[in-house]
Amino acid sequence: MRKKDNSDSYFMQKALNLAKRTKGFTSPNPIVGAVIVKNNKIISSGYHKAAGKPHAEVEAIRKIDKQSLKGASLYINLEPCSHFGLTSPCVDEIIKHKLKQVVISVPDPNPKVNGTSIRKLRKAGIKVSLGLLKNEALRANEVFFKNMLKRSTFVTAKVAQSLDGKIATAKGISKWITSKNSRDFAKSLRDEHDAILVGINTVIKDDPLLKGNKRNPFKVIIDPSLRIKPNSKILKNNPKKVIIFAAKSSKKKAKNIKPGVRVFFLDKNKDSTLSLSKILKILFKLGIMSVFVEGGSFTLGRFFDEKLIDKMHFFISTKIIAGKDALGSISGVGAKNPNFCSKLGDLKIEKIDQDLHIWGYPSY
Amino acid sequence: MRKKDNSDSYFMQKALNLAKRTKGFTSPNPIVGAVIVKNNKIISSGYHKAAGKPHAEVEAIRKIDKQSLKGASLYINLEPCSHFGLTSPCVDEIIKHKLKQVVISVPDPNPKVNGTSIRKLRKAGIKVSLGLLKNEALRANEVFFKNMLKRSTFVTAKVAQSLDGKIATAKGISKWITSKNSRDFAKSLRDEHDAILVGINTVIKDDPLLKGNKRNPFKVIIDPSLRIKPNSKILKNNPKKVIIFAAKSSKKKAKNIKPGVRVFFLDKNKDSTLSLSKILKILFKLGIMSVFVEGGSFTLGRFFDEKLIDKMHFFISTKIIAGKDALGSISGVGAKNPNFCSKLGDLKIEKIDQDLHIWGYPSY
Repeated sequence: MRKKDNSDSYFMQKALNLAKRTKGFTSPNPIVGAVIVKNNKIISSGYHKAAGKPHAEVEAIRKIDKQSLKGASLYINLEPCSHFGLTSPCVDEIIKHKLKQVVISVPDPNPKVNGTSIRKLRKAGIKVSLGLLKNEALRANEVFFKNMLKRSTFVTAKVAQSLDGKIATAKGISKWITSKNSRDFAKSLRDEHDAILVGINTVIKDDPLLKGNKRNPFKVIIDPSLRIKPNSKILKNNPKKVIIFAAKSSKKKAKNIKPGVRVFFLDKNKDSTLSLSKILKILFKLGIMSVFVEGGSFTLGRFFDEKLIDKMHFFISTKIIAGKDALGSISGVGAKNPNFCSKLGDLKIEKIDQDLHIWGYPSY
Repeated sequence: MRKKDNSDSYFMQKALNLAKRTKGFTSPNPIVGAVIVKNNKIISSGYHKAAGKPHAEVEAIRKIDKQSLKGASLYINLEPCSHFGLTSPCVDEIIKHKLKQVVISVPDPNPKVNGTSIRKLRKAGIKVSLGLLKNEALRANEVFFKNMLKRSTFVTAKVAQSLDGKIATAKGISKWITSKNSRDFAKSLRDEHDAILVGINTVIKDDPLLKGNKRNPFKVIIDPSLRIKPNSKILKNNPKKVIIFAAKSSKKKAKNIKPGVRVFFLDKNKDSTLSLSKILKILFKLGIMSVFVEGGSFTLGRFFDEKLIDKMHFFISTKIIAGKDALGSISGVGAKNPNFCSKLGDLKIEKIDQDLHIWGYPSY
């Protein structure tokens, strides 16, 4: 249903749409959009463009004169900040300019904020309402909420498979299963993440660059035996953007790795794999707030086995690869029982050419 | 778009909807619905209920008085018959009752008809128009058209899989991946077919009855080594409905098979399988006009390898089974190259609970 263009929901939707423009570009900050309304008309708006740049509400406030702001309402998808970070507290700006009302979707989960701004605004006599388009606002900042509440990196994964769940033929040919537009869209999802993660097999087989469309995220490679070739495109392109996780037992091979590349050496699991949760902990410490797992099948399987995926994108073509020895999209140990296996919730479906793009949130 | 309730398309849609009521129940005949219209109003209608029962147009004609029929228009999804079969030629009934116009979706592909009725009607001064809702009419009688034009059985296949293309866990547990409603719907598709076909592994593993909801179709089992257990439910339930295909080398085991069961012995292929195209030829000779292949993975893979599937239903749940050793939905040799593999065309998608039902027509 289209929202009436003078309803609260309409204004909040505008704020959310502004916020979404910079999805992925504000890390480690949330995405925030703000709309200032007076006499049922939008008189200013702004959004947070990147960490260190003005916050959305400040951007909106600074665009117009003091007189207009007096008695106006601010719509914002996240509670304004109350702490001195790279910018001064937004809440003080709002109070200073005598706004009448602040409509907020969700409180800021940052323990430094978490309701303090709301209380401060109310104390200053400003009307505050909470919860409008709450679910959409939570989803828009799903990365930030996980970062703040769980102190860990948000993990998105992607597969591009045939209708029957294959990502390569029996002979290993995988190009291409989905359409050019599907692949371009999948590439644009990289822009929303701080890092792209793949297993070493994908690097050896495809020799990918793993660039985004507008952004060049970190590339994380899980390579227990340090098999990566020094002339891999991914190393040549921008070694400072590469982070490799290897087993301690492979330390002596490290001399082959290009300078600039960061290599972390971990203990091996019994099955010679590395602990994904340890890897994610290190990534979080490195300031990588979101990671986009692009496979291959083995790596994705391990992420599922360890129940670490927060959000999952399937790109499914109408092709049928079939084949006993063709590679399935997600390996690993897999579920023990279909009645107790992971399941995508809050499912969305769209068509891209003939392909289906299905995404949702696994529950385990 | 809703069709206007006095348009030609509206009346033809009514005829088609009537026809579809008996999908599967008229074999080897087509499904046909007829609507008689006078002064833009439906004055009678009918549909073909089963082979040997009156044809749709005759049913519609007999329901009303001669006087009303004069000058009326008949809407029918298939060309009326002109030959004496189990009923007398419909075309003569139409001429006798002085209808003014006959609107037909598609000519009857039966070489005994194939336009002769249309010519006969025109010669009698009745206006005939052709092609209205042609595509829908062709799909509605896709079984009949294949039977007539290719002299072979129409093959539909079905899989019920997880989002990642698995039909069982690594330990072989397959119950249940899709929802009760999805499974019930899949069961109702059995009613549309003359026979259900499975490989012996499915019989041994699941011991199924393979009944429809309203119909008890033939059960075709591909069992080269004649491994079927005499106490299988499928044999006990109604042996006369069971047709087994075995290798000639298994002839001596035939004494264990219940009386009434038909067993055909074929030469083995080099890889010890039986030729599916030979099996389909025998089924066609037995009067089985359509077969519903329900798997398992091995059997479906062979059907895909031999490019024998005309129509394919996928029931896809939101579950993720994963697992290197979990069973993929379609085995066989599989495609050599994703750029030249089979692809579902004319795709339709619907939701059943949380599951997706996706169906279409493979091109090879």
